Amino acid sequence: MTTADRLSTGTGTDATWRTINAIRFLSVDAVQAARSGHPGAPLGGAPMAWVLWDRFLRHNPKNPAWTDRDRFVLSNGHASMLLYSLLHLTGYDLSIDDIRSFRQLGSRTPGHPERGLTPGVEVTTGPLGQGFANGVGMALAEKVLANEFNRPGHEIIDHHTFAIVSDGDLEEGVASEAASLAGTLGLGKIVYLYDDNEISIEGDTDLAFREDVAARFRAYGWHVAGPVGGNDLEGIAAGIQAGLDETSRPSLVIVSTTIGYGSPNKAGKASSHGEALGEDEISLTRKALSWEYGPFEVPEDVRTNAGAAVVRGAERESEWDGRFDAYAVAHPELAKRLTQDMAGDLPDGWDADLSALAGSFTDPVATRAVSGKALQAIAAKLPRLIGGSADLAGSNNTMISGRGSFQPESPDGRNLHFGVREHGMGAVINGMSAHGGLLPYGGTFLIFSDYMRGAVRVGALSELPAVWVWTHDSVGLGEDGPTHQPVDQLMSLRMLPGLTLIRPADADETIAAWKLAVENRHGPTALALTRQALPPLVLLGATAGASAGDVGRGAYVARDFGGAPDLILIGTGSEVQLALGAASKLAAENIKVRVVSMPSWELFDAQSEEYRESVLPRSVRARVAVEAGISTGWERYVGLDGAVVGMEGFGASGSGGAVMRHFGFTVENVVAKARSVLGR
Amino acid sequence: MTTADRLSTGTGTDATWRTINAIRFLSVDAVQAARSGHPGAPLGGAPMAWVLWDRFLRHNPKNPAWTDRDRFVLSNGHASMLLYSLLHLTGYDLSIDDIRSFRQLGSRTPGHPERGLTPGVEVTTGPLGQGFANGVGMALAEKVLANEFNRPGHEIIDHHTFAIVSDGDLEEGVASEAASLAGTLGLGKIVYLYDDNEISIEGDTDLAFREDVAARFRAYGWHVAGPVGGNDLEGIAAGIQAGLDETSRPSLVIVSTTIGYGSPNKAGKASSHGEALGEDEISLTRKALSWEYGPFEVPEDVRTNAGAAVVRGAERESEWDGRFDAYAVAHPELAKRLTQDMAGDLPDGWDADLSALAGSFTDPVATRAVSGKALQAIAAKLPRLIGGSADLAGSNNTMISGRGSFQPESPDGRNLHFGVREHGMGAVINGMSAHGGLLPYGGTFLIFSDYMRGAVRVGALSELPAVWVWTHDSVGLGEDGPTHQPVDQLMSLRMLPGLTLIRPADADETIAAWKLAVENRHGPTALALTRQALPPLVLLGATAGASAGDVGRGAYVARDFGGAPDLILIGTGSEVQLALGAASKLAAENIKVRVVSMPSWELFDAQSEEYRESVLPRSVRARVAVEAGISTGWERYVGLDGAVVGMEGFGASGSGGAVMRHFGFTVENVVAKARSVLGR
Repeated sequence: MTTADRLSTGTGTDATWRTINAIRFLSVDAVQAARSGHPGAPLGGAPMAWVLWDRFLRHNPKNPAWTDRDRFVLSNGHASMLLYSLLHLTGYDLSIDDIRSFRQLGSRTPGHPERGLTPGVEVTTGPLGQGFANGVGMALAEKVLANEFNRPGHEIIDHHTFAIVSDGDLEEGVASEAASLAGTLGLGKIVYLYDDNEISIEGDTDLAFREDVAARFRAYGWHVAGPVGGNDLEGIAAGIQAGLDETSRPSLVIVSTTIGYGSPNKAGKASSHGEALGEDEISLTRKALSWEYGPFEVPEDVRTNAGAAVVRGAERESEWDGRFDAYAVAHPELAKRLTQDMAGDLPDGWDADLSALAGSFTDPVATRAVSGKALQAIAAKLPRLIGGSADLAGSNNTMISGRGSFQPESPDGRNLHFGVREHGMGAVINGMSAHGGLLPYGGTFLIFSDYMRGAVRVGALSELPAVWVWTHDSVGLGEDGPTHQPVDQLMSLRMLPGLTLIRPADADETIAAWKLAVENRHGPTALALTRQALPPLVLLGATAGASAGDVGRGAYVARDFGGAPDLILIGTGSEVQLALGAASKLAAENIKVRVVSMPSWELFDAQSEEYRESVLPRSVRARVAVEAGISTGWERYVGLDGAVVGMEGFGASGSGGAVMRHFGFTVENVVAKARSVLGR
Repeated sequence: MTTADRLSTGTGTDATWRTINAIRFLSVDAVQAARSGHPGAPLGGAPMAWVLWDRFLRHNPKNPAWTDRDRFVLSNGHASMLLYSLLHLTGYDLSIDDIRSFRQLGSRTPGHPERGLTPGVEVTTGPLGQGFANGVGMALAEKVLANEFNRPGHEIIDHHTFAIVSDGDLEEGVASEAASLAGTLGLGKIVYLYDDNEISIEGDTDLAFREDVAARFRAYGWHVAGPVGGNDLEGIAAGIQAGLDETSRPSLVIVSTTIGYGSPNKAGKASSHGEALGEDEISLTRKALSWEYGPFEVPEDVRTNAGAAVVRGAERESEWDGRFDAYAVAHPELAKRLTQDMAGDLPDGWDADLSALAGSFTDPVATRAVSGKALQAIAAKLPRLIGGSADLAGSNNTMISGRGSFQPESPDGRNLHFGVREHGMGAVINGMSAHGGLLPYGGTFLIFSDYMRGAVRVGALSELPAVWVWTHDSVGLGEDGPTHQPVDQLMSLRMLPGLTLIRPADADETIAAWKLAVENRHGPTALALTRQALPPLVLLGATAGASAGDVGRGAYVARDFGGAPDLILIGTGSEVQLALGAASKLAAENIKVRVVSMPSWELFDAQSEEYRESVLPRSVRARVAVEAGISTGWERYVGLDGAVVGMEGFGASGSGGAVMRHFGFTVENVVAKARSVLGR
């Protein structure tokens, strides 16, 4: 197929082929101007992309936020110029000057597509596999919302998720995980085009990727069409149509393409993948494809042909608007809620039940258990909350009671079962968030945040709201041992921009943390929660139960033992109790001690200089931080003269209490460190 | 099959079944004593485990380090008691008291198997999917070594890699990646038993895992046998034998088991998975399986039956020893090298070519390019160096020249092609390292260390030597933009215990870093390398080219401008040049400045207090750190009175130079920060 395809004439003189060639040369020219980028995939993939966008994709270039638009994901984000060319030609707010400034600082056409920066870019892609899994999340969101909002005669949510995916995407485990999940869940509105070009960066894909992709996807429960030739426009269209016709299984259309198509010396070679073709080769390519226009030149007939998307898009959205108006008349409450949910606004009183929980925990309780209660309280008032766990729901306390499991047979279920697929879960949840209309959450043990870090990072970069429920947050989890005991995770997650990590110290802090997580519309929030029970801080001498305001400022004075402090003890999560215990001992010796609970570095660092100084006065240098995570990094708050009661290496298997004592997480040890810092 | 299996009598009175039951009850009793652990998998998996160990596994319990032993991996590490029971009964140095102290602090029977802690545990497992991929690495190592060392009539390396893998393992992307690679590479000496119990923690596997596993593995190029019943000893044996008979493809034997087999109320249920059965249920289980012995009691006939492994193992190793002696006579050099390689010892003069490179780079050069040269120099003298990249070999400079690609058709190739599978690469390399005889390395962009962090962590915990070649180590990589620009990675990797991260500042530091990486036998070493060219520090005023000693101490004084310093500028990697540039400007104003190059925090922190004080005197508090990574964390060395020239958020797409300037990585900005710290 590929050989035949290479011999075919992947060009022509009609408007379709001229548009395809315009996409190809905008891409090639932009890469050349930047002297950086990836021309090979746009040259090979332009025909399938254009068939999809021209004949199938339902979108409105003038309103990229239209609720019921089809979603399109370019999973091989390095082919960004393919997407930018499509956006430009079909009338999105992306000018030829934007195209000319490809990969330049400050442009709207960065090296890889970035959500929020470029109109029409649904998700940030580039790290391979993420986009594939994001699309699964989008299709999942569509199915959830369709089930939630559609009513007989009112199919108000009814769109597809399309993607172009590459060999590299299919090699990545995150895509494998998402593919298996999509098959299990029967997400029939997925249609992915597989850009099967048989070339990887290191050479022929046979070097590392000899599997039978079609058979693998069928095994996952997918419908597979093709292979069809990369220039076989009708074959591609038939493949896509077959995917649309198949409604109970996700579809993969295998398209045999030629990387760098049209380039006489680089077509079919890895050399066309990741660098500009060069002026000479571009000239030869222009000749080979009979493209007589200059760099960045788009002939008028192509503009007219591609620009028809604007009129079509306006008509489509207008038609939908009419249907939505009828829906709003028939189902005003649903219409209002859908509008609110798509905007990400919170309904009045959403936190009434949650707030009522504050102060209600008087016995020691694990923060993971409080989190479970908080989840119920929120879910009761905020139906768009949806999520699940990577097969640890019982341990993560992530099940919403009484709402069933989301399954092919029960699309009304609100509990997702991701299986033991943390990375896939992360990227699927990012896709759900990007789709809009839902606030997704995902749970696993904190240690396995490592497995999903690739997805957490892209979500943070993309400012996608989501709640990560990471339980078993320290060596205090006990017997499972060092493979399961997070040590480096708390601190290393603090290094990740855009992620708000909150490690609550008791029930009230946990309730506040959930409130903040739901209200955070500018990125993901991670909750680090204990397996073991923690006493309410007020019972240990804290001045009052933590308010959402306290936690929202990231750190607050839990109590001053005495007046202006000689010593500050800073704790987080399960170790704040040790700080309070140590403080009361030291206070008995007339040492003036302040205990600071610091559930979130990010939130504290975002406060005013004045507030930060009020909590941690620069003049007080006798400081001890207490946290059952790696010590390194705490110097940010304790400086060169302070000390840390923390971990210096991996944990150990044993009962939680024994392990905590073994590693020095005791009141006595905090007191001893404090003394040494004070020089007493 | 499973239904039939559940009805079968998975027990009996002969020695085999009594041994299987002994394994089951040792496991159940240990979990019960610990009040913590996983009884379900040992109850269901004991028959297949025993068939494998009794009839097939070639090992010597009295010498777990025997070179040519078969490797066994328990990928579902939570079933640790299954493995501990096998080790105890077959005569490894693991006593009944060790079994009794399961999951207790300081025991040799931790919650999940840990390499190095328990004799006979090949790899640390628990984080699912890792063991599966480790086994692929072991089989790959076997194939490489067999090709390297075997000679006609001397099959000195000839063993298999067995594993038990669970649903959870097969759901994880890291296992998918490794499975596809194993199929591609035709690793025919893999035989894995799939413990297909249809139960996940959240319930029936149908909740999240409806794929056709057999079809999926066939698509990867595996041979698949079964399903056979979990108590069908002959069927299991036939499946394993079929796997052994198949020599060109890895084999998966599907075994339909019943989790918690024998437990009247918990068999087949998730409730038997992760907590003790309880005294009452254990009594009922004893009755159901006609096991009349008390807790931890092993009847003598079982000890005799299982203990036969000691005699058999000694005979097998002795037979091999004889063959090895003959080999040593016929091929003395090879025999010597194999012995040396398996011991991890370095041959005399291994670094001669490498050392010769030092000082030879007089023009600016990217540290990734120097790394490529260093790799050639080492490979020429150290044949056991082997590795590759996750499809970025050209960018990572990880190809060994003239040694070809390792492929099914060319097992003598020394360059591995992992495909775009970072996590799989990490875990496969850990497995190669655990096998022994090779020093593996793996390359990708630093940003994608996130994708493989799960594997890097297990490698660090297991103290497995490996070299991670992570290039494109900062926003300085330029146009690829924030999806590809590491920001948080450098600092977050420093939080990971057991990993030595080195970020060299020029060619000489890079050469030294490689020397240290090869010599590090107690864990992985990561090299963070630039895409962009860096000038030799000596050309910028450094006193001398860095020696291996300098880099080995983690940080050293690159130059004192003036006498006892008023100010210390600390740089790493590509930013040391900025520190030197700023220092010479400040020195012109008679400010006494010290420039410290700090390629490795871990190595520096391991130095004596005296050395550290000599580099960073406590009395000098005017300190500025310069690193193109996240600022947070540098307070460890600059304290509360210093400053950091670093990143505060994500990067941006643009030319490397423009991006660096945009984020303040300029001599002028370093000078300005220094002035502010000095209060001038």
